[in-house]
Amino acid sequence: MSDTTSNAIPANLPLRNDLIGEEPYGAPQLDVPVCLNVNENPYAPDPAVCETIAERVKAIAPTLNRYPDREHVELRQAFSDYLARESGVRLDVDELWGANGSNEIMLQLFQAFGGPGRTVLGADPTYSMYPEYARDTFTGWELAHRNDDFTLNVDRLIERIEAVKPSMVLLTSPNNPTGTPLAHEDIERVLAVCETAEVAGAREGVHPIVVIDEAYIEFRDPGVPSAVELIKTHANLAVSRTMSKAFAFAGARVGYLAASKGIIDCVRIVRMPYHLSAVTQAAALAAFEHTDEQLSRVNHLRETRNATAAWLKQLTYKGQALDVADSQSNFLLFGGHLDNREAIFEGLLERGVLIRVVGPAGWLRVCMGTDEEMEAFRTALTEVLNELDKE
Amino acid sequence: MSDTTSNAIPANLPLRNDLIGEEPYGAPQLDVPVCLNVNENPYAPDPAVCETIAERVKAIAPTLNRYPDREHVELRQAFSDYLARESGVRLDVDELWGANGSNEIMLQLFQAFGGPGRTVLGADPTYSMYPEYARDTFTGWELAHRNDDFTLNVDRLIERIEAVKPSMVLLTSPNNPTGTPLAHEDIERVLAVCETAEVAGAREGVHPIVVIDEAYIEFRDPGVPSAVELIKTHANLAVSRTMSKAFAFAGARVGYLAASKGIIDCVRIVRMPYHLSAVTQAAALAAFEHTDEQLSRVNHLRETRNATAAWLKQLTYKGQALDVADSQSNFLLFGGHLDNREAIFEGLLERGVLIRVVGPAGWLRVCMGTDEEMEAFRTALTEVLNELDKE
Repeated sequence: MSDTTSNAIPANLPLRNDLIGEEPYGAPQLDVPVCLNVNENPYAPDPAVCETIAERVKAIAPTLNRYPDREHVELRQAFSDYLARESGVRLDVDELWGANGSNEIMLQLFQAFGGPGRTVLGADPTYSMYPEYARDTFTGWELAHRNDDFTLNVDRLIERIEAVKPSMVLLTSPNNPTGTPLAHEDIERVLAVCETAEVAGAREGVHPIVVIDEAYIEFRDPGVPSAVELIKTHANLAVSRTMSKAFAFAGARVGYLAASKGIIDCVRIVRMPYHLSAVTQAAALAAFEHTDEQLSRVNHLRETRNATAAWLKQLTYKGQALDVADSQSNFLLFGGHLDNREAIFEGLLERGVLIRVVGPAGWLRVCMGTDEEMEAFRTALTEVLNELDKE
Repeated sequence: MSDTTSNAIPANLPLRNDLIGEEPYGAPQLDVPVCLNVNENPYAPDPAVCETIAERVKAIAPTLNRYPDREHVELRQAFSDYLARESGVRLDVDELWGANGSNEIMLQLFQAFGGPGRTVLGADPTYSMYPEYARDTFTGWELAHRNDDFTLNVDRLIERIEAVKPSMVLLTSPNNPTGTPLAHEDIERVLAVCETAEVAGAREGVHPIVVIDEAYIEFRDPGVPSAVELIKTHANLAVSRTMSKAFAFAGARVGYLAASKGIIDCVRIVRMPYHLSAVTQAAALAAFEHTDEQLSRVNHLRETRNATAAWLKQLTYKGQALDVADSQSNFLLFGGHLDNREAIFEGLLERGVLIRVVGPAGWLRVCMGTDEEMEAFRTALTEVLNELDKE
């Protein structure tokens, strides 16, 4: 089923004026042999994981006539255990919060801290869904442009914080679609500025919070810190995480937030009651029982990323080498001068390989698949570039 | 874990000004032997249902590294099959839409059709969550008061539609917390008025939609129609349904919307991408395979409601018989002159029976439990009223 709606919406329906002509967000859902478009982990859960998921769900099934634990305390404990292991920081249950994907986390943050008269500040190019959260919550959305190499321009960001007076500064590490990590010292500078910065539309003494979206953080190189390490010392910091990417659990829709209790309590005011089902809670707890297996391919995907980046860099288009953004994620933004990226996208699609047209003009994004999938990508891209070079 | 947050929120956080001092919505989550407070179906799924849920979840578990079907087509087909059976109307897949509980359905409706400058009109007393959807989406919330017997005052509602110019008219059938059904001819009158009524803040030629919240509709008396029957003939009608109540599936959080394709397409613009997990979709499909078993206690609960209403009516408080609102749902609003309903609530709670302080002053709401639970309720209420009468 297609998910474009568009012009078919009858003009007499009271759709919000600012939504008229808008389309549902999302990459095309196409039935293609090699899907490298939505940054999933390509490795399916092991049979042992599937078994535990089924067991856990079966165990709670007799309670499904009842509402779930609205506070999902057991799952928040599991988030705490996971982060203690993954980032070396032990957070309390009331410093953690789960939702249906990190996009629900993000929506809840915008609902709690955004709204008319408020503005959120991001650093572009960045995740294309952010402006939709802003739109859906009537929040202003402003940008501080990144450097040409996609690193954060901290001075420019700080200038923009002072000019825009945002209620939230939303940064992404590693950034999507560029893969660029955020330096720890840069986050600390931004946190320090936000401790005293003003917020437009708020009382005196109110200061912006800083949200770091770490959806892809597990793919960073060993030794690189996570912003989670800064939570205990910074009450104005929130870090969004997800089980969808490295953790290979996109289908279960579990995102989570690590932050000071005060920030979590703000989010709890706007959450839908019982937003997280008992089935979701059981499935996520089952997956966390198998953290080793779920993360077992992350090293290999990191190697694939490094090898693929090196391979892409030796390709040329119109006589000029492809540029590849430095990535600490499971995807690569490549090209830089692809003046017809749509044709390359289509050429790959004809060969059964789906990537994503996203990011600044001239660039394309590919996510890391299995070895076989990457081989198919390399073969297809070589063919497409050769063909286009002949034109 | 308690879920009151309140005054602990640090004053320097940029929480929306209008949320300061607000509490998370929801009935207290207390560990009590007899829970008659949140209108659940008290009967647990049969072992066969639990088995199918586990099987279905296990079958999709190997796909959980991938995002789910954003359009949840198979589940929408199951909603169609269910409604064809339950209400005798066959809707198309693109006239149906699912979400995490009917409260996410309702939030999506407010997001698509509400917002600053827009107003939604309800008929009070009604569901206490509605103003929260309005608040969370910056939508105005206005009311047309019901008659003293809680039936809809259609003339007054129509006057208010003309005065308020709402973008949505939100009615509840059976109403919560009163149990009052909506007459089919009343819905049709409102639909007809809304076909030409104006919407404040919208272009000319835009007219309000009518949303009927039928969360409890399966508990209506046999022969009473559902508003679903009017969808094929009214493009301005949306009917919200849920698997949480009669269907005994509250823990899985599945609500759905039946409406014209145009209304569904509007909702799709504001939905989070992949809002409905593959696990949720599998669990719901499994439960629909066992529709007979899931609904098998509805008749008995209806009988319990009728018997409990009769029993409550012969009770007295301060020498005056208890009033009981006519209910077509699985709960009863009773009292009418309980000048200390908090004391009655507390007296029941001390005896291990949890009901709900909700609705107009002087009333209490109890939902239908198992036979044993209702016996505990009757015993406890008799004791509490006797004790209070002695004071």
